[in-house]
Amino acid sequence: MAVPGCSHDKVSLQARLARIEGQVRGIQRMVDEDRYCIDVLTQVTAVKAALDKVALALLDDHVSRCVVDAVREGAGEQKVKELTAAISRYLG
Amino acid sequence: MAVPGCSHDKVSLQARLARIEGQVRGIQRMVDEDRYCIDVLTQVTAVKAALDKVALALLDDHVSRCVVDAVREGAGEQKVKELTAAISRYLG
Amino acid sequence: MAVPGCSHDKVSLQARLARIEGQVRGIQRMVDEDRYCIDVLTQVTAVKAALDKVALALLDDHVSRCVVDAVREGAGEQKVKELTAAISRYLG
Amino acid sequence: MAVPGCSHDKVSLQARLARIEGQVRGIQRMVDEDRYCIDVLTQVTAVKAALDKVALALLDDHVSRCVVDAVREGAGEQKVKELTAAISRYLG
Repeated sequence: MAVPGCSHDKVSLQARLARIEGQVRGIQRMVDEDRYCIDVLTQVTAVKAALDKVALALLDDHVSRCVVDAVREGAGEQKVKELTAAISRYLG
Repeated sequence: MAVPGCSHDKVSLQARLARIEGQVRGIQRMVDEDRYCIDVLTQVTAVKAALDKVALALLDDHVSRCVVDAVREGAGEQKVKELTAAISRYLG
Repeated sequence: MAVPGCSHDKVSLQARLARIEGQVRGIQRMVDEDRYCIDVLTQVTAVKAALDKVALALLDDHVSRCVVDAVREGAGEQKVKELTAAISRYLG
Repeated sequence: MAVPGCSHDKVSLQARLARIEGQVRGIQRMVDEDRYCIDVLTQVTAVKAALDKVALALLDDHVSRCVVDAVREGAGEQKVKELTAAISRYLG
């Protein structure tokens, strides 16, 4: 369900995600061709870095829209808790 | 180019990568539908964890095949340096 | 210089940091005693997890105080940029 | 208990750990002085990066000594499993 006030910078996010999807397919090809482990791992590292950028873009969207709106409406505390819990899960 | 002695556990790796590709497509749909940032981020977190598992499977393959073979042939030192450099890049 | 409105939950943060300092000293002892690499690494992993908790506590403090105050004063955007830049550096 | 054949590059490791201990004490001072959250977080980020370097040095020691020795004695497989389990825990 769409959440009003929490829309994303879609064009940029979708471009990043499409690129990641292509990178993952590229890794499948590398595995298929028995490419050298370390070269495959280097590509996995690139996807992980690209994924971090998606996570940061989402966090930026979230803080600058949802959290800020919640703060204005006096409901900021729960949003901040939810945010740090999400970052905590992302850290591992 | 295929590297002899460095073949992967392909079936399991490809299954993981196909699942990751599907998850990334799922995230694209979520963004398209303006789903809640934190829910999208939760899915990005799942992909990151799945990617870590791919990296670990590659490291396992690499150490148990390429590095072990290199050690037996007296060329272990360079392989170990290459390995820790790859882990270092993966850590960020 | 102290920043008004950005005070930390000091007691809990200092307790965490004192514990981390003790853990780091414990690792120095382990190295001194030539303890098994994997056991030393396990302790390093524990310190990293404890450090993540400190980072999250700081982020929580920062968002719920500084960022929220900045938003109320109409200066939220710069604070959000600064926040995501800091998380980005922390991710690696 | 010391593990024969698994000695560390102690001088360099201890230097890194002593520096980390000092950095952690520096963070305690920053918290005490109510320094700006983002500046404290920047220091926590530096400690995390330094800790990653310790982990990598331990992994390097471990692979080039313990794992290589185990391989030579035909007991490599268990060591490799133990290694990837340790890296997995470190990744989060």
